[in-house]
Amino acid sequence: MAIITLTTDFGTADWFVGGMKGVILGINPQVSIVDITHEVPAGDIRAGAFALLASYRCFPRLTVHCAVVDPGVGSQRAAIAVRTADYFFVGPDNGVLSFALAQEKVLEVHRLDNDAYFYHAPSVIHKPVSNTFHGRDIFAPVAARLTQNVPFDSLGEKLNDYVRLDWPQPRLGGAVGGVLRGEIIYIDRFGNAITNINTLAGSVSKIRVQGKVECDLKEFYQEVAPGQPLGIIGSSGFLEIAVNNGNAAQELGLKIGDVVEVK
Amino acid sequence: MAIITLTTDFGTADWFVGGMKGVILGINPQVSIVDITHEVPAGDIRAGAFALLASYRCFPRLTVHCAVVDPGVGSQRAAIAVRTADYFFVGPDNGVLSFALAQEKVLEVHRLDNDAYFYHAPSVIHKPVSNTFHGRDIFAPVAARLTQNVPFDSLGEKLNDYVRLDWPQPRLGGAVGGVLRGEIIYIDRFGNAITNINTLAGSVSKIRVQGKVECDLKEFYQEVAPGQPLGIIGSSGFLEIAVNNGNAAQELGLKIGDVVEVK
Amino acid sequence: MAIITLTTDFGTADWFVGGMKGVILGINPQVSIVDITHEVPAGDIRAGAFALLASYRCFPRLTVHCAVVDPGVGSQRAAIAVRTADYFFVGPDNGVLSFALAQEKVLEVHRLDNDAYFYHAPSVIHKPVSNTFHGRDIFAPVAARLTQNVPFDSLGEKLNDYVRLDWPQPRLGGAVGGVLRGEIIYIDRFGNAITNINTLAGSVSKIRVQGKVECDLKEFYQEVAPGQPLGIIGSSGFLEIAVNNGNAAQELGLKIGDVVEVK
Repeated sequence: MAIITLTTDFGTADWFVGGMKGVILGINPQVSIVDITHEVPAGDIRAGAFALLASYRCFPRLTVHCAVVDPGVGSQRAAIAVRTADYFFVGPDNGVLSFALAQEKVLEVHRLDNDAYFYHAPSVIHKPVSNTFHGRDIFAPVAARLTQNVPFDSLGEKLNDYVRLDWPQPRLGGAVGGVLRGEIIYIDRFGNAITNINTLAGSVSKIRVQGKVECDLKEFYQEVAPGQPLGIIGSSGFLEIAVNNGNAAQELGLKIGDVVEVK
Repeated sequence: MAIITLTTDFGTADWFVGGMKGVILGINPQVSIVDITHEVPAGDIRAGAFALLASYRCFPRLTVHCAVVDPGVGSQRAAIAVRTADYFFVGPDNGVLSFALAQEKVLEVHRLDNDAYFYHAPSVIHKPVSNTFHGRDIFAPVAARLTQNVPFDSLGEKLNDYVRLDWPQPRLGGAVGGVLRGEIIYIDRFGNAITNINTLAGSVSKIRVQGKVECDLKEFYQEVAPGQPLGIIGSSGFLEIAVNNGNAAQELGLKIGDVVEVK
Repeated sequence: MAIITLTTDFGTADWFVGGMKGVILGINPQVSIVDITHEVPAGDIRAGAFALLASYRCFPRLTVHCAVVDPGVGSQRAAIAVRTADYFFVGPDNGVLSFALAQEKVLEVHRLDNDAYFYHAPSVIHKPVSNTFHGRDIFAPVAARLTQNVPFDSLGEKLNDYVRLDWPQPRLGGAVGGVLRGEIIYIDRFGNAITNINTLAGSVSKIRVQGKVECDLKEFYQEVAPGQPLGIIGSSGFLEIAVNNGNAAQELGLKIGDVVEVK
C-alpha cells in the first residue's frame, strides 16, 4: 500500500482534513493516509516545516509527504511537488517543505499547473478550483496521483528551485574553551524546549539559558531528581531542555527564540 | 477498499471513537475509516449536519457516511440507514443526516431494528445493546455490514421519511436594487464566518453585518490588505466573511445567527 | 489486514504519533492503525490503563494493543510484550497494560531486549535507540513485528509477571440492607462520572455522592427530565453518574476519587 502523510494547520474541529482524505481515496482507495499533525498554529509555516522535518524520515521510501500551511492560498505563490532520492513532497512553495528538503537529495521540482489532476468540487461553480482550499483541490489529488506513478513532469512546469525558510545556525563564540550559541525553535506538548543544536563535538560542561536555567547534559530524564532541569539529545537529534517529570517551558519560562549557550 | 466516514461529538480524549473503529474492523477488516470530525460541540445536531454536508461529496460513490450526534440515545428516536443514488448514510433520525440528504436523490430509508447486525459488548450483561453508546453498538456495526452488501431491507422496517432540520433560507427583500438577507451558520477554526448564502446572481456591491462589518466580495484573501475584511465564496460553495491573515469571528465579533445582507 | 491500536499521552499537536505510524508502516504496510486516544493526561498511567480497558475488547482477535504512557522512558523500567488468549499487548511495564490484562488469560510476558526489532532513527547517532521516545523506537516496531508473526520468545527474556496498578475494589458495608461503596475513577468528555462499580446484585434504591447528589438507577438518560441526575450502567459495564442533557461532573462538582454509595 502507498502512503501519504498530511501536515496542516487545518485543525480537527472542522471537516477540512476529512475532505482531503475523501479526495485522496476517491483517486486511489489503496492509500494509507497518516496524519503527522493538523494542529500547526494557523499560518505558522516554520512550525509546520519543523514537524515535517522531525518525522518524515520515519516513513518508508516513496512515501508522499503533503504539507499544507498556506496563508497565501489563492495568491501568486506557487504550488509545487518535489521528488527526492527517497520521497515525494507536495505543498505550497512558501518554505513549509524546506527544512525536510534541506536533508534530502532533491532531484526535481515541478509547479502544479496541470488541472487535469485537480479536484473539482461539485459545489464550486464556474471555477477550476476553489481559491480558499487548495489542500482539498490541488495538494490532496496531486499527492494521490503520485501514488499512481503519473509521470512527474506531467504535473506542470519544471522549476529550478524552491523557497527556503531561514534555519537559524548555531554559532561558535566566546572566550577560551568556546561557547556554542543556538536558540529554542520548538516547544512540544510535554513542555520540552527543542533547540537548533544537533552537533555537540567534545565535552559539554554546561547548558545555559540566560536568567532562566543552567543545567547539565544527561542521557535520560531520570538522571536528575523529579522537578530538576536537564539537557538531553531528543528523538529528532536536537538538544532539548527538559525537566524530569515536569514541563520545562512552563516551569522555567522558556520561549521560542531564547538563546541557548553550550559550554 | 470500502470507506466509512465518521462524524461525531465524541471528542478524541476518551476511547469512544476507537471503540467504534474496533467494531467496524472486527466485521470488515478491509474498510478504510476516515474521521470527518469528532469535535462537533456535544449534542449540537445542526453543527454535525453541516460538517457532513460540507464534506460528504468529496468521497467516492458507495462510501458509507456514519454520523452520530445523538443526545437522545436510548430513547424512542429511531436509528436509521438511508440509501441514496450515490451513498449510504447511517445515524440517529434526529436531523443530523438531513442537510446532506437534501442534496441527494434518496432511494430508501430503513429503521435499524435487526439486532443480528448489532454489536454485543461482552461487558454489557442482560441487554441486547448498551443504552448509552449506540455509536459502537448499532451505527458502527451496521455501517460495516453495509460495506459487505447486506440486503438493505434486512436492516429493519422501511420508513417513508426521515427527520429534517430547518435550513434557514436566505430571503430577498429591501428597496430598489434588492437586498439578499442570510445569516451566519458556522464559524470555522480560522474564524471564517460561513453563511447560508450560496447563490449570488448578478453583481454584488456590498456585504454587511449590521454594526459589525461592511466589505466587498473578492476572489481570494490577498485582494485586501492584511487585517482587512472581505467576502469570499468558500470551498463548500457558501459566502464566507473572512479577514486576510486574521480571524474574522474574533476581530469583528461575528456570531452564529448574525444577519448578513448582500446588496 | 492486521490491526494495531495506539493509546498514548503524546497529544496530536506534535509529530510523535505520526512518527510511530511511519515506523509501523515501514515494517508492515498492510497494518490498519487505530488511535484509541492520544490525549491521556501527560504521565497519567492510570487514565491510560482505563482507556485501554474500556476499549480493547471491541477489536478482533490478534489485534496488537500498544499503550505508551511512559514517564519513566529511558530509565530501568522494562519494556514488555504480553500474549493473551486473544490479543497482544505492548508497552512499558509500569501498569498501563494491567487493567486490561486483569480481564485476560495471560499466556506469556517477554521483555523487549532484542534490538534487531527496534527502529534506529537516522538522526540519533551512536545509540541503539533514543532515550526519550521508545514509542517510536521500541514499542511501534515491536508491535509491527508481532503482526508479522515473529516468534514471541525472540522478543527477549521471558518474565514471570508484570507490574499491576491497584484497582480500587468497591466494598460492602453499612447497616441493614447494605451499602456498596465505590468511587469515581474517570470523567469522560460529556462529564459522565464513571465509577468502579460493575456489579449491582439485587435491587438498587439510591445512588449517592455525599453532599453532591442523590439519584436513582435508570435504563436511559431520558427517563429523567433534562438537567436531572441519574445513575446508569455505561457502555463499559460500569455504573456512571450522569445528567440528562447536561454535564454531571461540572454541574454536580464530581471529581475522580469521590466516594459513591449504592443502597
